[in-house]
Amino acid sequence: MCGIAGAYSENLLAGKYVYYLLFSLQHRGQESAGIAFFRDKLEYKKGMGLVSEVFSSEDLVPARIAVGHVRYSTTGTSRLECAQPFVVKSKIGNIVVAHNGNLVNYQSLRRELENEGSVFTTDTDSEVIAQLFSRLLMTKDLEDALRNLSEKLVGSYSCVLMVNDALIAFRDPLGFRPLCVGELEDGYVVCSESCAIDALDGRFIRDIEPGEALVIQNGELEFFKFAECRRRAFCVFEYIYFARPDSVIDGVSVYRARSEMGKILAEEAPAEVDFVSAVPDSGITAAIGYATRLGLPYMEALIKNRYIGRTFIMPKQELRELLVRMKVNVIRDNVEGKKIVLIDDSIVRATTSKRIVEMLRKAGAKEVHFRVGSPPIIAPCYFGIDMKTREELVASRHSVDEIRDIIGADSLGYLSLRGLLSAVGKRGLCMACLTANYPVPVPGERFSPEERQP
Amino acid sequence: MCGIAGAYSENLLAGKYVYYLLFSLQHRGQESAGIAFFRDKLEYKKGMGLVSEVFSSEDLVPARIAVGHVRYSTTGTSRLECAQPFVVKSKIGNIVVAHNGNLVNYQSLRRELENEGSVFTTDTDSEVIAQLFSRLLMTKDLEDALRNLSEKLVGSYSCVLMVNDALIAFRDPLGFRPLCVGELEDGYVVCSESCAIDALDGRFIRDIEPGEALVIQNGELEFFKFAECRRRAFCVFEYIYFARPDSVIDGVSVYRARSEMGKILAEEAPAEVDFVSAVPDSGITAAIGYATRLGLPYMEALIKNRYIGRTFIMPKQELRELLVRMKVNVIRDNVEGKKIVLIDDSIVRATTSKRIVEMLRKAGAKEVHFRVGSPPIIAPCYFGIDMKTREELVASRHSVDEIRDIIGADSLGYLSLRGLLSAVGKRGLCMACLTANYPVPVPGERFSPEERQP
Amino acid sequence: MCGIAGAYSENLLAGKYVYYLLFSLQHRGQESAGIAFFRDKLEYKKGMGLVSEVFSSEDLVPARIAVGHVRYSTTGTSRLECAQPFVVKSKIGNIVVAHNGNLVNYQSLRRELENEGSVFTTDTDSEVIAQLFSRLLMTKDLEDALRNLSEKLVGSYSCVLMVNDALIAFRDPLGFRPLCVGELEDGYVVCSESCAIDALDGRFIRDIEPGEALVIQNGELEFFKFAECRRRAFCVFEYIYFARPDSVIDGVSVYRARSEMGKILAEEAPAEVDFVSAVPDSGITAAIGYATRLGLPYMEALIKNRYIGRTFIMPKQELRELLVRMKVNVIRDNVEGKKIVLIDDSIVRATTSKRIVEMLRKAGAKEVHFRVGSPPIIAPCYFGIDMKTREELVASRHSVDEIRDIIGADSLGYLSLRGLLSAVGKRGLCMACLTANYPVPVPGERFSPEERQP
Amino acid sequence: MCGIAGAYSENLLAGKYVYYLLFSLQHRGQESAGIAFFRDKLEYKKGMGLVSEVFSSEDLVPARIAVGHVRYSTTGTSRLECAQPFVVKSKIGNIVVAHNGNLVNYQSLRRELENEGSVFTTDTDSEVIAQLFSRLLMTKDLEDALRNLSEKLVGSYSCVLMVNDALIAFRDPLGFRPLCVGELEDGYVVCSESCAIDALDGRFIRDIEPGEALVIQNGELEFFKFAECRRRAFCVFEYIYFARPDSVIDGVSVYRARSEMGKILAEEAPAEVDFVSAVPDSGITAAIGYATRLGLPYMEALIKNRYIGRTFIMPKQELRELLVRMKVNVIRDNVEGKKIVLIDDSIVRATTSKRIVEMLRKAGAKEVHFRVGSPPIIAPCYFGIDMKTREELVASRHSVDEIRDIIGADSLGYLSLRGLLSAVGKRGLCMACLTANYPVPVPGERFSPEERQP
Repeated sequence: MCGIAGAYSENLLAGKYVYYLLFSLQHRGQESAGIAFFRDKLEYKKGMGLVSEVFSSEDLVPARIAVGHVRYSTTGTSRLECAQPFVVKSKIGNIVVAHNGNLVNYQSLRRELENEGSVFTTDTDSEVIAQLFSRLLMTKDLEDALRNLSEKLVGSYSCVLMVNDALIAFRDPLGFRPLCVGELEDGYVVCSESCAIDALDGRFIRDIEPGEALVIQNGELEFFKFAECRRRAFCVFEYIYFARPDSVIDGVSVYRARSEMGKILAEEAPAEVDFVSAVPDSGITAAIGYATRLGLPYMEALIKNRYIGRTFIMPKQELRELLVRMKVNVIRDNVEGKKIVLIDDSIVRATTSKRIVEMLRKAGAKEVHFRVGSPPIIAPCYFGIDMKTREELVASRHSVDEIRDIIGADSLGYLSLRGLLSAVGKRGLCMACLTANYPVPVPGERFSPEERQP
Repeated sequence: MCGIAGAYSENLLAGKYVYYLLFSLQHRGQESAGIAFFRDKLEYKKGMGLVSEVFSSEDLVPARIAVGHVRYSTTGTSRLECAQPFVVKSKIGNIVVAHNGNLVNYQSLRRELENEGSVFTTDTDSEVIAQLFSRLLMTKDLEDALRNLSEKLVGSYSCVLMVNDALIAFRDPLGFRPLCVGELEDGYVVCSESCAIDALDGRFIRDIEPGEALVIQNGELEFFKFAECRRRAFCVFEYIYFARPDSVIDGVSVYRARSEMGKILAEEAPAEVDFVSAVPDSGITAAIGYATRLGLPYMEALIKNRYIGRTFIMPKQELRELLVRMKVNVIRDNVEGKKIVLIDDSIVRATTSKRIVEMLRKAGAKEVHFRVGSPPIIAPCYFGIDMKTREELVASRHSVDEIRDIIGADSLGYLSLRGLLSAVGKRGLCMACLTANYPVPVPGERFSPEERQP
Repeated sequence: MCGIAGAYSENLLAGKYVYYLLFSLQHRGQESAGIAFFRDKLEYKKGMGLVSEVFSSEDLVPARIAVGHVRYSTTGTSRLECAQPFVVKSKIGNIVVAHNGNLVNYQSLRRELENEGSVFTTDTDSEVIAQLFSRLLMTKDLEDALRNLSEKLVGSYSCVLMVNDALIAFRDPLGFRPLCVGELEDGYVVCSESCAIDALDGRFIRDIEPGEALVIQNGELEFFKFAECRRRAFCVFEYIYFARPDSVIDGVSVYRARSEMGKILAEEAPAEVDFVSAVPDSGITAAIGYATRLGLPYMEALIKNRYIGRTFIMPKQELRELLVRMKVNVIRDNVEGKKIVLIDDSIVRATTSKRIVEMLRKAGAKEVHFRVGSPPIIAPCYFGIDMKTREELVASRHSVDEIRDIIGADSLGYLSLRGLLSAVGKRGLCMACLTANYPVPVPGERFSPEERQP
Repeated sequence: MCGIAGAYSENLLAGKYVYYLLFSLQHRGQESAGIAFFRDKLEYKKGMGLVSEVFSSEDLVPARIAVGHVRYSTTGTSRLECAQPFVVKSKIGNIVVAHNGNLVNYQSLRRELENEGSVFTTDTDSEVIAQLFSRLLMTKDLEDALRNLSEKLVGSYSCVLMVNDALIAFRDPLGFRPLCVGELEDGYVVCSESCAIDALDGRFIRDIEPGEALVIQNGELEFFKFAECRRRAFCVFEYIYFARPDSVIDGVSVYRARSEMGKILAEEAPAEVDFVSAVPDSGITAAIGYATRLGLPYMEALIKNRYIGRTFIMPKQELRELLVRMKVNVIRDNVEGKKIVLIDDSIVRATTSKRIVEMLRKAGAKEVHFRVGSPPIIAPCYFGIDMKTREELVASRHSVDEIRDIIGADSLGYLSLRGLLSAVGKRGLCMACLTANYPVPVPGERFSPEERQP
């Protein structure tokens, strides 16, 4: 889970553009942020925390091109050293890498490079990409180098790079993670999601296609294919949960997809209740869809505290039991004596769901029905979403009835795979976490190059 | 706009309780935070920023009683020196004051004290209260001192004090600002809003009444009246906008009040549209009520970036025009070709409303109707809400039709005063900002001790 | 132990002047620093740490007058709240107080003020002075107010004040602590020591006399006597240890005084040794004088690590024994097989002296003789030097012979009182710590208005 | 100019040992500090500033081996990224490099590595050494790898490395920079100077010889020669200025060498004056020697402000002229009407010397004679001392008479080369900055493998 951005600006505003792009992509990672600036020379700043915490005005130096990154760690430990973008100098000059995704063959690629004498300063995919790409560029031109790179990398990788004075963006041949390009008055921007282009009042040009690269140099845009995209495997979880609802990715409005998930869920798993409510904020859009389809009122049963930050002091045992509603509180007045259906976007471990059902019951809810805007998550993700192990996934070890009992709901319903596909309205999705069929070979997992037809 | 809290704990957890109470009251002030701790000796810490930024674990020392404050400045400048609680030592011992409200006669009280030789280190109401109360306690017992104090103070004041080892909470005789008391396993808490008691899983005991004081000492609770409450003047803006929706104040659920505002607004100012939407987050509850009453769908047309913080770098002129959707972005897919009614809780200057209407039109909305969940704000508040001058209030200088033209909406409707009263469901409100009739004498303003009957 | 400074500047450089003055007075206090600036309005900044740590460029706002302070706490606890200057507003306007010294009757003055209704935010002398002076100025003109103030204050007080747009400096009637005034191109400065005027290339005008005040307003200097100085009691320890050697105080060069102490010590307590050395840095000047008088070589036997700071991690028990020379190390080559006389300016607890003698012996010194450039310290200081209790003072409980055994030296000699007076070359000194005769009444101590004739 | 340290501790105190070692080496670099800790896993922390600013107690984790560094940049820019030790992972495991010195063939080594595909994250010698050594260790054992490394590296390099669980220290075959080893109760330490071993009360074992390596693993010490030392080239400037006077390097006491420089200078360039004084602190030891030899009194004419730190605000033009004695002030009383000879260790640009002579004259000195404890610096250093270009070196473009006129002294005398050698008392020194004969080939400079015989 990361956000990446790049900018080219005739008026040397590239650093500022990237700052504001990252700010709009902050939901994709809050652990660290970094920007590399290039005008005549390369400068960069990285730090732990939010974009607004890491950068002050004087950091945003004039730049013709800039590359930025917000990180929520999936590989590598949580330290400043692992903050991106990764910046190196090599025979071919400066290389800056901002990467969103996860390399499945990271270990073997790294071992291969180490055998050739490479040393590493971090445990990040980005450093492997930087070193590999640098070596390839020593003997090949950009297109060939990218072609070779794509043959070597297995996994997900949407990347924004700076190679000397060129801004390069590319997306892996299966298109796991989003990446799009937009136009501003004095230049161009690339970024993970279209909402960031909106914020700058830019013109959305188009998504970068799977296996496609974009090079921006001297104000010129050049697109080219560096790998054939035989099938797509866009992460369905971007639509379910991860992307911002005001983004449009690969032609699909995230908001509309979520709303449809709610509507189809309503058909597949209706509930006889007084009103529909959501687990805030992630379940709201699906909940409104659910309510609309069934003609039920939508109401807020829960309110979220927006001020939880990294430095919030989590209570020790003495107070943990006491603090039940620090993050989410019940609006008791709405709940007392009511039959409620609660919509969430997904269930991972079920601990939060359980706590919320308890809170609603304690506040006097007569019935609490739980509905989930996606199918059960049964398998881990190896492509960048933070769902580590099968053990943590409640649905990998329990039936729906068991989960209903675990969370204490009166009923529980999930959206079907078929319903999900119908809601998104297109094929070519990676649904490995829902089907355990992986679109690229992952050691120990089933490889299923064709999407399972539900 | 401030939040105040106090705790008494047999197990010396008072400091931690206040930390978590303040955290739940963070919406009432993000500028500074402070806590005073008392066990054998008095300690305190104050700082600029959020509760979670100011305090680290080791700051929360064991304490039998503690008093805390979150501040959004209304008087005094924005500096660390003005952070509360205000802590002094005097003849009668330690006095700690956390104050929510605004003294109308601050200047004359201060002058009076200065004439008696007092010096001041800040420009805050709290320092005036501390000095005055300290002087009164030199010759009177607590009840008499409070009685005298209330005769001197004109304006709004909900206060939590520590006087040596006693925790004292009181509310001005008109009850402008909220204050309530709850029970925990090993003690008691007082705080601005009931939601903070919920978060600690405490038992809500009751609101402190206007003109009532509560003293907690040696584990004993004692309530007494220090001033007669001939009429109430609870700030209607707490219901409209300021309080958290999961709080219940003076017997009225804030959520229900807002929902009713939306419903009555729907009756008073319906709109023929495709769907209802809200200016996030403040208009959401009213919007859902509005949609429900008219049987229209409720949808999200706008999405809010949750990561704007104090240190966000506001763009200079070069980029300001460009950055249109940094804080709020349109979900274009929902908006294009649609007739929309947009609900907000109130309009102060109209600049944000104007910008949002523009954004919706640019995204292709066919019609944009604007509805406001409260009557026009025509007069400044002198009791703690940050609406400074008549000049800034668009409705003090313009008719509804003019405001409609200013913001560029197809139509504009406000809730009536009668509708507002009906939504709250009770009398005894301060509606000075909506009527220009003030419940206490304010120099240059109309004094209207009886609530205007709409 | 504190340093104080003030400046008046036509070119609005007063804040910068005070910054550089404080920087030259940093040896007088490293715990906290603060500056108050006045142009049209009053601003101030205080912080923990060195002057260079507390202030950045943007803090030094344009100011016509400014007052600053560096603090090493003697009263009050070590917290930001106690940092000076103390700034208040009162009936008579703004008062800023920077104080160097210690009020013997602090408690009774405070109680008196509390009885009149004053509240206190700190435990500092400065707050008492500010409140008292403010009350006096309510009914009196400046001269009368100062006269009255001096009648009330018992103890040592060199002060720099700002009262609205006037810069005021005064020195207690016994002149315990130094204070002088200098002229710059565009204004005037007052400060604790003349070395700070030198650093600004200013012209030293003169010392402020005991019982004298200086008012700088509208560019005019006005001196006046507010109290008669019947006898002087300038702190002899300023000459022995505390002041900077490049300062001249009350007409006496600090360097020359120290050098003379060494020379007279040489006569009073000669030693037959290979060379003379010093405990760095405090004993160097006296050591050079000692060597000169005896015609012995002066050499460095010990070297000091200059990088010990506030945040140096002091080792736990496991390493404490190991770390013998972290602050001072022996130059073994100079010491091996040699007879040495080591000069220090004074002995307080004798722990450092003991350790140093051990180190020299361990490094192979044949004989280690110890000489002290001042008489034995036998009584605590109540006027601002940090020698708390008799129990800590080795010479209050032990004879010279016993101290020699405690520190393990081959011989030990102190300068006589007569020798000290002769070295300073003038009368009118407070030598209470050396004689136990106090120049003002201190509860429990002998009051001896006339200096003891040695 | 850097300081390096390493420790092996049975009791897991290696991290703390290195902290205290670095603290004693702080004079060798104040820009950044870093320590790498190894117990079961490798951790490290680096930061800008002093050792005591960078590390807090919790940073000093238990460690069996640790490697540390303090830096004053000679190559690389002044940024956190360039702070050492340099830590990488490679095929052969973890490598940590702390380096003191300067590689003359840095560019060609780096180009060579880049041609083999290496990428670089910094511009430091240490990264080149880490990458090169890592590659060599892929195919060779430690001794062969070091042998090969020494064949490749041209320039000065005293290094402390960690390679997995081995602590390795080595010194280039000419022995430019110091490096020594000591024994503690539970282990061993290596460090730049012996004074750091003293501080820990350790037993000095011996200097590491030019071309010699020391490996500490599993508590065993192993020394071996990896390159023949045909001639030595120890930096004479370590004796003149850079090392701490309480260190003994290659059998020579730094203090004694400096003292001898002063004595021989006295013979070569005597002065008829009232007393001898020093530019503090660097000239003090030589000045005492000078005075002793001539039988003249030694006195302090100048006093240094010890509180100049990195964050001191340098005045803008408006005040620069005014601030003459911020760093060094005259003790006027000593100077007025006197004939003075002032001793400094060396003259680089002459700007400070000029200013000091001016100050002394302004304070009334009758004659100011200047003597320098080393010969004129006429050529740049390529081995780690920060004397960049010939243009900056006043003696490379001016005769002694001209320099005398530039600084405004009545007379000027330098120590001769012969005198310097005699003072140090041994051959095998690099005196390239004084002779322009370089002991290793430097492009554009004269290569003179044999020391010039003065």
